[in-house]
Amino acid sequence: MLNAIEWCDDHLEVIDQTHLPARLEVVKLSTVDDVVDAIKRLAVRGAPAIGVCGAFGVVIGLREGRTRDDLAKTIGDARPTAVNLRRDVDRTLQADDALDEALEIQAEDRESCARIGEFGRAELADTTRVMTHCNTGRLATSGIGTALGVVYSKFEAGEPIEVIATETRPLLQGGRLTAWELHDAGVPVTLIPDSAAGAALQAGKAGAVIVGCDRVAANGDTANKIGTYQLAVFARAANVPFYVAGPLSSFDPDTPDGRSIEIEFRPPEEVTNASGIDVGVWNPAFDVTPAHLITAFITDAGVLRPPFSVTIAAAFGAQK
Amino acid sequence: MLNAIEWCDDHLEVIDQTHLPARLEVVKLSTVDDVVDAIKRLAVRGAPAIGVCGAFGVVIGLREGRTRDDLAKTIGDARPTAVNLRRDVDRTLQADDALDEALEIQAEDRESCARIGEFGRAELADTTRVMTHCNTGRLATSGIGTALGVVYSKFEAGEPIEVIATETRPLLQGGRLTAWELHDAGVPVTLIPDSAAGAALQAGKAGAVIVGCDRVAANGDTANKIGTYQLAVFARAANVPFYVAGPLSSFDPDTPDGRSIEIEFRPPEEVTNASGIDVGVWNPAFDVTPAHLITAFITDAGVLRPPFSVTIAAAFGAQK
Repeated sequence: MLNAIEWCDDHLEVIDQTHLPARLEVVKLSTVDDVVDAIKRLAVRGAPAIGVCGAFGVVIGLREGRTRDDLAKTIGDARPTAVNLRRDVDRTLQADDALDEALEIQAEDRESCARIGEFGRAELADTTRVMTHCNTGRLATSGIGTALGVVYSKFEAGEPIEVIATETRPLLQGGRLTAWELHDAGVPVTLIPDSAAGAALQAGKAGAVIVGCDRVAANGDTANKIGTYQLAVFARAANVPFYVAGPLSSFDPDTPDGRSIEIEFRPPEEVTNASGIDVGVWNPAFDVTPAHLITAFITDAGVLRPPFSVTIAAAFGAQK
Repeated sequence: MLNAIEWCDDHLEVIDQTHLPARLEVVKLSTVDDVVDAIKRLAVRGAPAIGVCGAFGVVIGLREGRTRDDLAKTIGDARPTAVNLRRDVDRTLQADDALDEALEIQAEDRESCARIGEFGRAELADTTRVMTHCNTGRLATSGIGTALGVVYSKFEAGEPIEVIATETRPLLQGGRLTAWELHDAGVPVTLIPDSAAGAALQAGKAGAVIVGCDRVAANGDTANKIGTYQLAVFARAANVPFYVAGPLSSFDPDTPDGRSIEIEFRPPEEVTNASGIDVGVWNPAFDVTPAHLITAFITDAGVLRPPFSVTIAAAFGAQK
């Protein structure tokens, strides 16, 4: 099975996702600078995956003799929006044995994906066609994925499942990564331009929309890949349920609502490269979907339903 | 001033829009086959422009000695969705002097754009930032354009106006053509991925959305470039007015509603080319925006407001 991130005694090996699907290239990350660079240029991406990658980055950094403060900042701030990176970096820094902790974080991620998959499979028992956005599968986590984890769980259980995958401009994580992953696994997948998502839902092409999350606030407002908010709006217009799948580690009870989530902006060239024209660009990497557009969260602690401020708090209370 | 289509004694010269913005290449269309090929491969596109192109195609075809039935079918069916092509081809075929008629159609198109521009300038007097989709300007018509005609009218009158242009995947007519046209004219333009349109409206980046149209049904349902429906849904969610700009020649009172409009599907390669993976694709060229999401139509006969079935019928009655 595909492993996006693998610890090898003294370094990390990761699939460089910027080259997919043209070639499957594994790169060796031996220094903190390597790790930070891989996260920043999206060689590794997906909230759970960059958390795991950051945790192993701490292991490498401590062996390099770098201070905890330096590592907390250098690795923890490599990308701002996903809560997993900051949290997994801090957790590894505070542990007695950093390597044990990083391996534990990775194992938990794998296990969380499996649980999300099973909870989602039960929730979507009658759904045979889902629409998804960006990439939330084996390339985005240490396991089978979050939103795609639900798809894989249904597929492995022999249930009928087809995926409508949005391209996810500007970096085409849907067109390059999700289409590749699902095709590789034998799951039927249909690729659509982001501009066709509304029409596809209007035409009844999917019985549910399911996406991942980079940070869920205490009230349920959810930061995820740019374009997620749009899908939630279309889903509501088409009367189709809209699910967010993710581990509780992507939830941040310290963030009260979406307005408190820092949104990363990416370079204009990601957009202008495609058309070859040098004009102004607005290129946020994420958007915030308001909680009221979300049907339910499919988490590793079960399905959370509205009112989310209550159910999210309860899930964290139960976890402690 | 840029002319997308020019009649030169015995042939047409058109800008091959597939090469923009990399290079401005004018191609000579000397036969019916040349004309049909240019329309099919989108060297010429935009509902008014392909109507004009088709009219001159009839002139060329009659000189080639082809029959009226043959030309009605060969040229009139080159693309199915926009009503202008079929109507302008039929009109030229029925005229005593085909060349006079084609030149008249082109002159009317230019004049219609100017009127749309002025009606739109009055309607959007207080709007300084608009979002638009695809390309509806000098490259899509024989004049200043429809939705972009409103922008140019405001700009030429010295009114403040900025444009948020969506990329418009898969063929990037926004990123390649609209960004190029507006930048060339000195109009401030910001390019966004299609996936960011909802977030941009949510963030208050535009005071109105204005798009063109390929066919407006009798009840106001509007076929236009794929992604238009989405913008209408976001505009409603963000409480921003949503305008459709176009000449009455893009309205079809014989089409009762959106369900009767044939939607063209385009080759999967337009989508898979970007990501380099061979999977299933759903690639409609157009979608239908239901009339209830449209604030008003800005036409060459004035601004039409709901109830559209009444105001559209009245506009056609007044025209006769």
